[in-house]
Amino acid sequence: MRNITDRELKSASLTQLKQDCEELREEIFRTVSVCGGHLASNLGAVELTVALHRVFDFPKDKLVFDVGHQCYTHKLLSGRANKFHTLRKRGGLSGFPKREESEYDCYGTGHAGTALSAALGFAKARDLKGEDYEVIALVGDGSFQNGLVYEALGSIKILKSRVLLILNDNGLSISPTVGGMHEILEELKGGSGDVKLFERFGLTYRGIVNGNDLGELLPALEEAKERLKEGSVLLHVVTKKGQGYPFCERAPVETHGVSPSAAEREYSTALGEELCALAEKDGRIVAVTAAMTDALGLRGFFGRFPDRAFDVGICEEHASVLCASMAAAGLKPYYAIYSTFLERAFDEVIHDICAQNLPVTLCIDRAGISGADGETHQGAFDLSYLSFIPNLAIAIPKDIGELRAMLRLSANYPAPLAIRYPREGTEGEVLPLEIGKFEVLHSNMSDIVLLAAGERCLKLAETVRLKLSGEGMDFTLVNARFLRPLDEELLLSLGKSYIFTLEDNMLAGGLGDAVARFYRERGIRKTVMSFGYGDRFIPHGQPRELMESFGLDPAAVEGAIRRAYAGG
Amino acid sequence: MRNITDRELKSASLTQLKQDCEELREEIFRTVSVCGGHLASNLGAVELTVALHRVFDFPKDKLVFDVGHQCYTHKLLSGRANKFHTLRKRGGLSGFPKREESEYDCYGTGHAGTALSAALGFAKARDLKGEDYEVIALVGDGSFQNGLVYEALGSIKILKSRVLLILNDNGLSISPTVGGMHEILEELKGGSGDVKLFERFGLTYRGIVNGNDLGELLPALEEAKERLKEGSVLLHVVTKKGQGYPFCERAPVETHGVSPSAAEREYSTALGEELCALAEKDGRIVAVTAAMTDALGLRGFFGRFPDRAFDVGICEEHASVLCASMAAAGLKPYYAIYSTFLERAFDEVIHDICAQNLPVTLCIDRAGISGADGETHQGAFDLSYLSFIPNLAIAIPKDIGELRAMLRLSANYPAPLAIRYPREGTEGEVLPLEIGKFEVLHSNMSDIVLLAAGERCLKLAETVRLKLSGEGMDFTLVNARFLRPLDEELLLSLGKSYIFTLEDNMLAGGLGDAVARFYRERGIRKTVMSFGYGDRFIPHGQPRELMESFGLDPAAVEGAIRRAYAGG
Repeated sequence: MRNITDRELKSASLTQLKQDCEELREEIFRTVSVCGGHLASNLGAVELTVALHRVFDFPKDKLVFDVGHQCYTHKLLSGRANKFHTLRKRGGLSGFPKREESEYDCYGTGHAGTALSAALGFAKARDLKGEDYEVIALVGDGSFQNGLVYEALGSIKILKSRVLLILNDNGLSISPTVGGMHEILEELKGGSGDVKLFERFGLTYRGIVNGNDLGELLPALEEAKERLKEGSVLLHVVTKKGQGYPFCERAPVETHGVSPSAAEREYSTALGEELCALAEKDGRIVAVTAAMTDALGLRGFFGRFPDRAFDVGICEEHASVLCASMAAAGLKPYYAIYSTFLERAFDEVIHDICAQNLPVTLCIDRAGISGADGETHQGAFDLSYLSFIPNLAIAIPKDIGELRAMLRLSANYPAPLAIRYPREGTEGEVLPLEIGKFEVLHSNMSDIVLLAAGERCLKLAETVRLKLSGEGMDFTLVNARFLRPLDEELLLSLGKSYIFTLEDNMLAGGLGDAVARFYRERGIRKTVMSFGYGDRFIPHGQPRELMESFGLDPAAVEGAIRRAYAGG
Repeated sequence: MRNITDRELKSASLTQLKQDCEELREEIFRTVSVCGGHLASNLGAVELTVALHRVFDFPKDKLVFDVGHQCYTHKLLSGRANKFHTLRKRGGLSGFPKREESEYDCYGTGHAGTALSAALGFAKARDLKGEDYEVIALVGDGSFQNGLVYEALGSIKILKSRVLLILNDNGLSISPTVGGMHEILEELKGGSGDVKLFERFGLTYRGIVNGNDLGELLPALEEAKERLKEGSVLLHVVTKKGQGYPFCERAPVETHGVSPSAAEREYSTALGEELCALAEKDGRIVAVTAAMTDALGLRGFFGRFPDRAFDVGICEEHASVLCASMAAAGLKPYYAIYSTFLERAFDEVIHDICAQNLPVTLCIDRAGISGADGETHQGAFDLSYLSFIPNLAIAIPKDIGELRAMLRLSANYPAPLAIRYPREGTEGEVLPLEIGKFEVLHSNMSDIVLLAAGERCLKLAETVRLKLSGEGMDFTLVNARFLRPLDEELLLSLGKSYIFTLEDNMLAGGLGDAVARFYRERGIRKTVMSFGYGDRFIPHGQPRELMESFGLDPAAVEGAIRRAYAGG
């Protein structure tokens, strides 16, 4: 679409602005249909973003998006319209704000709850440097349940600075918003609310404003900007997720994020099915999620076991402690979460779950490269940040069938267990397995073995094996399905000099390091060569192309094996 | 002291109970004077704990302490009086609740903010299992600022369960409590407050109760227990930190935690001095702490630069984002924090600081084994959880002088930098150094090199070297002062076959793994043998004895070098 400049926006008539909004909405819809991305949230935020660009002066003023998935209109209005068709493609525009992409993106986000903290940092820096600009944090009501927002609220008075906090309230996080703060906001919307709470935190409250109606929104924003001269302001804006597209308005959860295609099976479906089957037989089983019921495959479980299914909102830390204590009290909790979001609960995984050796099962979805959402959503750290935690077992299924087998195993496993898997894969058989036992998929007399973890790496290894075995360069292939405990018996019995490891994770702290350490600690000399992700953040793109960019691809592995065959 | 049983407490007169309290107080004072530990907080909570034991029925009822440092009276009242003299000693009683220590400790804690989440987990498990007991969370007002408490508050209505939340309000976290919630609580204490906020979260509010006056406390607790039948209750109790000991009452910050001795110099003193000197010259420098100003050595900085020093309360996540955004806005933030508490900000270190490559300096105190506080306070994970984060440099000073040099270096370092150091050490010279450059302390023609990181490991290595060199078994000794970036040039130039690494950290994911990977990736054959902590949580005890228990001691290293000299 054409570039709409802030100068145009500032002089446009209301009628023209409304037309611009429709044009932006169409562009977003068209692009997301092709590239995938966040649809309903962006459709809901079009007017609000246009109004912000009209009233404020970006990039001099600073706009911080919470999560950042609702930034598409902002990108279209800040000189990036001509690149918008590259959204979420490798080398193209990110689906989230990125400092390196534009000076209009003053702060990169991706995980919930950071915007108010970040805005306060900008505001305080402005004060200390004697600069002159305004700072706006745009936060959804889903994020408002997150502890980080509360911590930042507590700092407004401590920091003695001024920010404009816009609460974009659509009544939904990804799943419908729940919890105490949600009720406070609902009361405010109903007209019976009490604004003193926010005043105590140092915010002047202004609401309720219809965030899809420019006629109401523009004067409210102008007024908030005026009040901001005196101190921090909370502007409570109500928007409709999916605004303008009736099927999105009707199904905001389903159209929150949209994928361009969905050919393969999803691991999450198996999670839901297996948990239901297990819960049918075992009344101790409960499921916990932090506002991601559907994406994690738990909708069925929530329907069948409503008393044993808990969506606690975007509260990853709290969900972990809740699981730990439920386990301490004799239940069998399953905590389903994306790999990248489990980073938020790192401390609680260590101290609440593992230090107390409690039987919580972490079902870690979107592990490894997750793709088009980029840096903040890749799941390439989990093996590294879990592999040194005592008492924790870590399982990596080779396919969906093996995830099922691991879940069945977990039902009687008496200690913490993490199972990490990508979004999509193939079904596969459900075969019994033991904790800490690898599976030899193909045995061969050569001096070479490949230890591969997870479906992507095993498929890659099998591709290479089929090719090279035809040339007489076969090798042993092992499904290294437990990072903790390692299969010590198998590792000791392998009479191979060349050990290749393949993992969909950072090289530092992953399977390769663990296998190499295993041999080092025993004084056994092996050549351990590892494939995985090197020392840089992984941008957005398709998993396969990103894996290739790190040398985790058939050609690179094939070359290494050829060299080993050649004797070095 | 004698064992006071709950049965005695339940039948005792008020006069007798008051005498018991004095006896408990004396026992705590006497023991902490010898063993070290948390003094002021425990003195303040004596009456409250006695009242809880009188009114409730432990261990059937469940009492969850937030942080847990105020649990001494509870330990004395639950059959552990005869072991209380072993407090914080290796093999003795832990200074925190521990499930394996007593069935009265239903849930282990150590980090702030978990108690309400944990209590809700117990309560929900009770409901689902059809059991009959009460659950009490005892939370200090300092923890009340932590995001995790807010996340748990939001869950009270979601979980539809009943807990008694006791807010033990002494107006202090470790440093004086600050922030928006603090003001809400202060208003309540002043009689002008509004209890609706808590009601919206599903809590019936009851306050203010003098928590050091049993005459007021006991009927209030009885009433709260009655109300608890209908739903969750918040009992707001005001206690005096240090109660009964005038010098503790006057200096609650200084007597929060007490060490049995303090012979060595503290790294934190140097942090404070250097930051002041740097800030004098560079107006961009700011310091941020999460309620630990004094222990981190920042009292002087806060005094000299009050506008550039921020104590945001027990909000480790928020503090990280604040630092990241201040850096994005052109300031130079230093975030001082204990190693174990930085785990709380793991996600923000990755996504806010490092993914955006922002020049935040993490000053990580109490790194490595911290000692007597045990599992939840050891700093033995930080190298593992930081070593795989792209863009982050990690420095490990060999002494306090080198910490000073690293801080001076940091002033112009344009990217994220972590400096990790233990509490105590020796002063040492301040010599210029470069990022990613090791220091060869002793060079020798043998085939053996020791790469040691940090003061403890370097002292250990030097002890071994002095002994073995006298026997003609000298080796090269290197101060491996950067885990990231490694000194690649030096590692490549080392013509040694035997590389020993020593680190005050878990073996998994630490220096040893990084060095071994460095050689593996380049196809260079070396024997890399690593000393550090193996795969278990590190309990309480003295650092030296704990290190020994993991084979990180002179005898073990000496033996390994003798074997290398003997040819394998």
